[in-house]
Amino acid sequence: MTHKTKQNKTPFSQKKLGQIPGSVIYTGKKSNQKLFIEAFDYTKDNYVEKELTNVEDCFNFNEGSITWININGLNHVNAIEKIGEHYQLHPLVLEDIVNIAQRPKIDEYDDYLFVVLKMLYYDANEKIVSEQVSFILGNEYVLTFQEAEGDVFDTVRDRIRQAKGRVRNMQADYLLYVLIDAVVDHYFSVIEVLSDKIEDFETAIFSGNVDNNTSKNIQNLKREILKVRRAIFPLREVINRIEKNDRSLIQKKTLTYYRDIYDHLIQLTENIDIYREMIWSLMEMYMTTISNKMNEVMKVLTIMASIFIPLTFIAGIYGMNFNYMPELQYKYGYFTVWGVMIAIFIGLLIYFKRKKWL
Amino acid sequence: MTHKTKQNKTPFSQKKLGQIPGSVIYTGKKSNQKLFIEAFDYTKDNYVEKELTNVEDCFNFNEGSITWININGLNHVNAIEKIGEHYQLHPLVLEDIVNIAQRPKIDEYDDYLFVVLKMLYYDANEKIVSEQVSFILGNEYVLTFQEAEGDVFDTVRDRIRQAKGRVRNMQADYLLYVLIDAVVDHYFSVIEVLSDKIEDFETAIFSGNVDNNTSKNIQNLKREILKVRRAIFPLREVINRIEKNDRSLIQKKTLTYYRDIYDHLIQLTENIDIYREMIWSLMEMYMTTISNKMNEVMKVLTIMASIFIPLTFIAGIYGMNFNYMPELQYKYGYFTVWGVMIAIFIGLLIYFKRKKWL
Amino acid sequence: MTHKTKQNKTPFSQKKLGQIPGSVIYTGKKSNQKLFIEAFDYTKDNYVEKELTNVEDCFNFNEGSITWININGLNHVNAIEKIGEHYQLHPLVLEDIVNIAQRPKIDEYDDYLFVVLKMLYYDANEKIVSEQVSFILGNEYVLTFQEAEGDVFDTVRDRIRQAKGRVRNMQADYLLYVLIDAVVDHYFSVIEVLSDKIEDFETAIFSGNVDNNTSKNIQNLKREILKVRRAIFPLREVINRIEKNDRSLIQKKTLTYYRDIYDHLIQLTENIDIYREMIWSLMEMYMTTISNKMNEVMKVLTIMASIFIPLTFIAGIYGMNFNYMPELQYKYGYFTVWGVMIAIFIGLLIYFKRKKWL
Amino acid sequence: MTHKTKQNKTPFSQKKLGQIPGSVIYTGKKSNQKLFIEAFDYTKDNYVEKELTNVEDCFNFNEGSITWININGLNHVNAIEKIGEHYQLHPLVLEDIVNIAQRPKIDEYDDYLFVVLKMLYYDANEKIVSEQVSFILGNEYVLTFQEAEGDVFDTVRDRIRQAKGRVRNMQADYLLYVLIDAVVDHYFSVIEVLSDKIEDFETAIFSGNVDNNTSKNIQNLKREILKVRRAIFPLREVINRIEKNDRSLIQKKTLTYYRDIYDHLIQLTENIDIYREMIWSLMEMYMTTISNKMNEVMKVLTIMASIFIPLTFIAGIYGMNFNYMPELQYKYGYFTVWGVMIAIFIGLLIYFKRKKWL
Amino acid sequence: MTHKTKQNKTPFSQKKLGQIPGSVIYTGKKSNQKLFIEAFDYTKDNYVEKELTNVEDCFNFNEGSITWININGLNHVNAIEKIGEHYQLHPLVLEDIVNIAQRPKIDEYDDYLFVVLKMLYYDANEKIVSEQVSFILGNEYVLTFQEAEGDVFDTVRDRIRQAKGRVRNMQADYLLYVLIDAVVDHYFSVIEVLSDKIEDFETAIFSGNVDNNTSKNIQNLKREILKVRRAIFPLREVINRIEKNDRSLIQKKTLTYYRDIYDHLIQLTENIDIYREMIWSLMEMYMTTISNKMNEVMKVLTIMASIFIPLTFIAGIYGMNFNYMPELQYKYGYFTVWGVMIAIFIGLLIYFKRKKWL
Repeated sequence: MTHKTKQNKTPFSQKKLGQIPGSVIYTGKKSNQKLFIEAFDYTKDNYVEKELTNVEDCFNFNEGSITWININGLNHVNAIEKIGEHYQLHPLVLEDIVNIAQRPKIDEYDDYLFVVLKMLYYDANEKIVSEQVSFILGNEYVLTFQEAEGDVFDTVRDRIRQAKGRVRNMQADYLLYVLIDAVVDHYFSVIEVLSDKIEDFETAIFSGNVDNNTSKNIQNLKREILKVRRAIFPLREVINRIEKNDRSLIQKKTLTYYRDIYDHLIQLTENIDIYREMIWSLMEMYMTTISNKMNEVMKVLTIMASIFIPLTFIAGIYGMNFNYMPELQYKYGYFTVWGVMIAIFIGLLIYFKRKKWL
Repeated sequence: MTHKTKQNKTPFSQKKLGQIPGSVIYTGKKSNQKLFIEAFDYTKDNYVEKELTNVEDCFNFNEGSITWININGLNHVNAIEKIGEHYQLHPLVLEDIVNIAQRPKIDEYDDYLFVVLKMLYYDANEKIVSEQVSFILGNEYVLTFQEAEGDVFDTVRDRIRQAKGRVRNMQADYLLYVLIDAVVDHYFSVIEVLSDKIEDFETAIFSGNVDNNTSKNIQNLKREILKVRRAIFPLREVINRIEKNDRSLIQKKTLTYYRDIYDHLIQLTENIDIYREMIWSLMEMYMTTISNKMNEVMKVLTIMASIFIPLTFIAGIYGMNFNYMPELQYKYGYFTVWGVMIAIFIGLLIYFKRKKWL
Repeated sequence: MTHKTKQNKTPFSQKKLGQIPGSVIYTGKKSNQKLFIEAFDYTKDNYVEKELTNVEDCFNFNEGSITWININGLNHVNAIEKIGEHYQLHPLVLEDIVNIAQRPKIDEYDDYLFVVLKMLYYDANEKIVSEQVSFILGNEYVLTFQEAEGDVFDTVRDRIRQAKGRVRNMQADYLLYVLIDAVVDHYFSVIEVLSDKIEDFETAIFSGNVDNNTSKNIQNLKREILKVRRAIFPLREVINRIEKNDRSLIQKKTLTYYRDIYDHLIQLTENIDIYREMIWSLMEMYMTTISNKMNEVMKVLTIMASIFIPLTFIAGIYGMNFNYMPELQYKYGYFTVWGVMIAIFIGLLIYFKRKKWL
Repeated sequence: MTHKTKQNKTPFSQKKLGQIPGSVIYTGKKSNQKLFIEAFDYTKDNYVEKELTNVEDCFNFNEGSITWININGLNHVNAIEKIGEHYQLHPLVLEDIVNIAQRPKIDEYDDYLFVVLKMLYYDANEKIVSEQVSFILGNEYVLTFQEAEGDVFDTVRDRIRQAKGRVRNMQADYLLYVLIDAVVDHYFSVIEVLSDKIEDFETAIFSGNVDNNTSKNIQNLKREILKVRRAIFPLREVINRIEKNDRSLIQKKTLTYYRDIYDHLIQLTENIDIYREMIWSLMEMYMTTISNKMNEVMKVLTIMASIFIPLTFIAGIYGMNFNYMPELQYKYGYFTVWGVMIAIFIGLLIYFKRKKWL
Repeated sequence: MTHKTKQNKTPFSQKKLGQIPGSVIYTGKKSNQKLFIEAFDYTKDNYVEKELTNVEDCFNFNEGSITWININGLNHVNAIEKIGEHYQLHPLVLEDIVNIAQRPKIDEYDDYLFVVLKMLYYDANEKIVSEQVSFILGNEYVLTFQEAEGDVFDTVRDRIRQAKGRVRNMQADYLLYVLIDAVVDHYFSVIEVLSDKIEDFETAIFSGNVDNNTSKNIQNLKREILKVRRAIFPLREVINRIEKNDRSLIQKKTLTYYRDIYDHLIQLTENIDIYREMIWSLMEMYMTTISNKMNEVMKVLTIMASIFIPLTFIAGIYGMNFNYMPELQYKYGYFTVWGVMIAIFIGLLIYFKRKKWL
């Protein structure tokens, strides 16, 4: 149970020691996920959409059309291995697809590009979840692999079905662009939530409304930003290498679109860096708030003690039991002492007023 | 209402999830802005100036002359799409023009350069506003797109009208330079205000004149500098790429002028970095000021308590009611005690004086 | 004894002053280690495995087969010099093999590659141990040198014996890959322990459960991460140079596998950097925890003193022995004073409540 | 008045908004400076030296000799424009010469090199002054422009007059070197003063001799270093580009000398970086000094309060007026109480001694 | 006297203002050093060793043999100028040899390489001394220049005399390597002392054994590391440029040896960086130690005051002299008060125990 939480927080490769390179072993936690495969096959003029539960069914598509096969359920390694065999994927590619601890990367093989990236969303508990999505771009086909079925590609499905936008007129490289773009679009909504959270903290700290949890919460926010950063930063390099790619897989006219994604990523990373700096400032603010509070506590103590300790001393003087203490006999001795005390009291008040402690 | 403020502070692409790439959707807040188009068409010897409200009117200019069309009102996406069609601009360019969350960038297309940058000014509330300005440099024409009509290009208008400076003798690339230069000039005045603000803080902190808002204000200043930085830093790269550009759009003899803008930008970024460092120092100063204040509070407390607590103890001694306390019977007992107390008092004063606490 | 500990903590070259370059001098501490040599010689179809105690026995292997000789016991410099002579290794290579203070590196010689890396594991005292492993990749052979016999290569042995995976079908360059991969796999388990430790601290600090040792322990954790970092960071460069290597020693089809190791290393270094940042945050949390604790202590003091010092003053007043103090004669004087005191007490409680100190 | 001070502290381009590029407008404050022009014309064998007040007089020099014209008084823009016309300088060059907010830079034109750098010296108020010096290196001539006449080039004048060193045997590129070298030499003396100041602070802080101004002074020192850095750091790039310059203006045999300047600059920047680090350390020291002082104050308070508060309590006990308090009747009650008090006193002293608070 | 110390701490070029470039002026402090020249001339088969006091004596060596001339005493500028003349060294080289404020560097001239580096050792006062050593590598000769005679090259002398190692079989480039290697070897022993010092501090701080000097000592350690860093870091670049050197002065087969020095330097700089990080941690530890101490002081104060102030208040109550105070008449009034006081005492103890302050 606690172990699970740990994996959740600091994911790294759970590769087993001594495992043979190229072994296809699922490292995630969604091991009772059902296999769900959907396939789109389209040309400019028409399209076919299928939902399959059997892997082999998705291999019999025509040439000349663009095929998109979306495989959900990385726990079904057999199915993935079959696909790998059919599309002649390198064993290391299959290993990476099911090992959910990859960082975003691109590997270029002779006949296809292999792209791994991370989908980000807030789950029901307001925690950021980072889910791995893999893409294979071949000639005339795109394969996508996800841990579980999601709605991130819904807009892409709609566009294919309704022939909206350019997607039906373009090649597989444009389809890959549209799919990645859909993932990147989700980053913006995650970033927006983060931005709201930071602002709430800011408002709280600026109004001095802090408690012992504030520091904890700031650290949690830091961690979320770290997570987002890990997903987004390496992606820039991925897109960059797609652009620099000299294979025929990516056409020149599609490059402008990838450049657009790149611009979005730069914008995202810039925002993330600004958030980091803002959180840093928040922490600083919080520290000065603590210091100021302590200062205030000290002032109250000092004022109370500095005023009443001398007065108590005077009272103590005339509480002494010496036989011969002339003041005690004075008729107005008592009232004189009161006068002195009030004078001291007022004098100290003025002193503290001048020091701006009051 | 609160949402609006947020957008104001941390602007990022408000691109809708699942939006089709290349959709021309205005993302700013000035949606009831009137469309205002002005056009200049000039040669060395004469010029024409028009104010238009209809887009098509600005397409009928002669060849051989330089045309500058300044479009204000990004909410009028239809007009912008018409212009895009006429000048054969890429859909992504149009999308970027009306999406006001771009960072400064340059995109090179076959027939034109697309430059986005940010205008900075202080609004009525003394807040820095960052407004997007887009430029299209084509052969013999420059298009500029702004959210709202402003006065930043006034000096350029004057120069064209009065044939001041070189602008009427040069090509469109020089016009683009003059326009960008006008924007960069505005940065200097923003920077000057920032510099004044920092100095005011400095004076306040150096004179120990801090309160609980000081930290808040420093953080706000930090944020402003962050905003200015975001506008200016990427612009260096933009100008750099204009210089490196190997198209015929930018002539060799104009490069010196772009190099001059580049020098200004370097100067600006250097100043910004210095301001950042100065603010960092201010925060440090502020922290030590707080510490010093606490130190002073502690000293007052310690002096008062250390002097009067022992004296009160002595008074307490002779307030005890033991039957047999020989000192009480002494004739000068009371005065002796006073003597001892005054001696302790003076001794402690000397002690604190030596410690430099007084 | 203490000296030993020092070497343990901050290992650097114990090269003697004035030593002749190329001198083969063992600098480690395991000087009573027995020499243990094992040799594997295999082709696709069969393999030979020998355990030797005599160096010369491992030279008589057939051509056409892949030979792996694993030498344990760097203190036996004579044996290592004999091997160096047989395989015509450069004197500086031999010097580096037995000088256990190398940082991970690769040296390219005409006929062979020399790779040094660090094995990491937690010893019985839960301390990270960094042990040097050297590799020589020649044509058709791989030599490995270790300080002491270990189990890190067990899985490789199994794979050769049982012809599991690709190793028996590939050349020496793949064997080198498999061996390095085995070492890198161990890094992941070290990283996992580190990750657990950090989390335990985090939980402790988040629950305010800190003591004076917390800071010490955080510093120790920092040091461990530093150690891991030193082993892993330079290795990236090593693998990178293997990939860039233009010799025929590394075949093109093996490069994908080295790229895989490289990806793992990037992942590891990314994790290490995240851990560094997390520890930084922990330290920050710890500091604010201390500050908050001090704040709390101060509040208790201030509340107690501020309430009872004025009350004591009042009691002191009526403990004075003036002859004429009218209140003392009042019938309900005593109870009135109690009433005043209780009123002050409650008033101050409300005051502190409002200040949220209670 | 206050505005002036500001310009003094954070100089940036005072370029007027909307000013036409290439306008020659003096931005400094020495606007009542007299124009002073001196001209040297020399060959290996003889030299002419003139002091002029009229610009045109300096144009009639022979060919074949090296001419150095030193113009003092940037407020005389007309004179500078005349020179610019005669030597065919680009308008932007003239603009830069009189705009004293340039950062050190080099601009390469077809027939000449334009170099801007900053002279540094301490003025009468012990403040660092940064003054702009511009150089034009043409074929057989060097022009220098200064705000006011200074003594920085005195040694160069002497060398020309007395044919000391190589200057009379070399070309204009060597003269430029000698002039720049004279400026760089001045940096060393500024750095020396800085170094002394840092050391004085260090001595003060190490001896615990700090007051509330210490932090202020450290910040001022930081600012001075920032100023020196701004002058020196970009100059490295300038010299570097002179060295890389492929024009015939700089001869190969002079390069060694420019490399020497470069080495000096590297040395200077290294020192500056070290000073920055030292100041950082000083600030740290200062903070710990404050903390230690507060600790000491707290200890005194704690010791005094902890000792006398319990004793006062005991005295208070026996000051109570209960009818039946058996101890009061004891003959040695009073002395016993004294004994107990002294025992507590000594006990607490030992306790604090053990805690090393005394 | 104080001035001397300053030079010692922050050495920078003592170049006089206005000095002519190429002037050979000794800037060190060992101005009464005797000139001591030793010369080695060797071939594979025999060698000659001479100690000279006259410069000219060292010029008459045979061709075909390797000559090493070691000049001690940089104050003898005449002798050095004679050598410079004989070997046709550039004036700037001679200037650099005697100006002991150089940073490690390499200058390549047509016929020779000029290398400057720093020797480091701890002097009698346990202070790090950085002494300049210059090397000239020509065809068949190496010149070395030192401020004073030292023992750093002893092992090299032995190797030449006894034909140990490869030195007698190799060319001058190998001799240079051996000499630099001897200097680099010394770095390791300096680093070892530094490492020990850091560990001692660590032990002290970890055991809470700090005083007001701790911070001072940490800063001193920082400074030492800074000094070592300045000597070692630029040397990497020097060795790197020797390796990249395309002259025939350095033979291909010697490059492996320079690469070995480079590896050592990387190792050294890595260690230095680790020490920096460790010292940073130490300072952090020290700060938390101070904070923890203050916390402890505060707790003692709070406990003492919080316990005894209320008790004193109670005693004060019954010390009042009201005529009618019913409790005073109660037979067991006194003992009841004692009971209440003890109850409060125990209650507060439990409270503080629960707060873990005891």
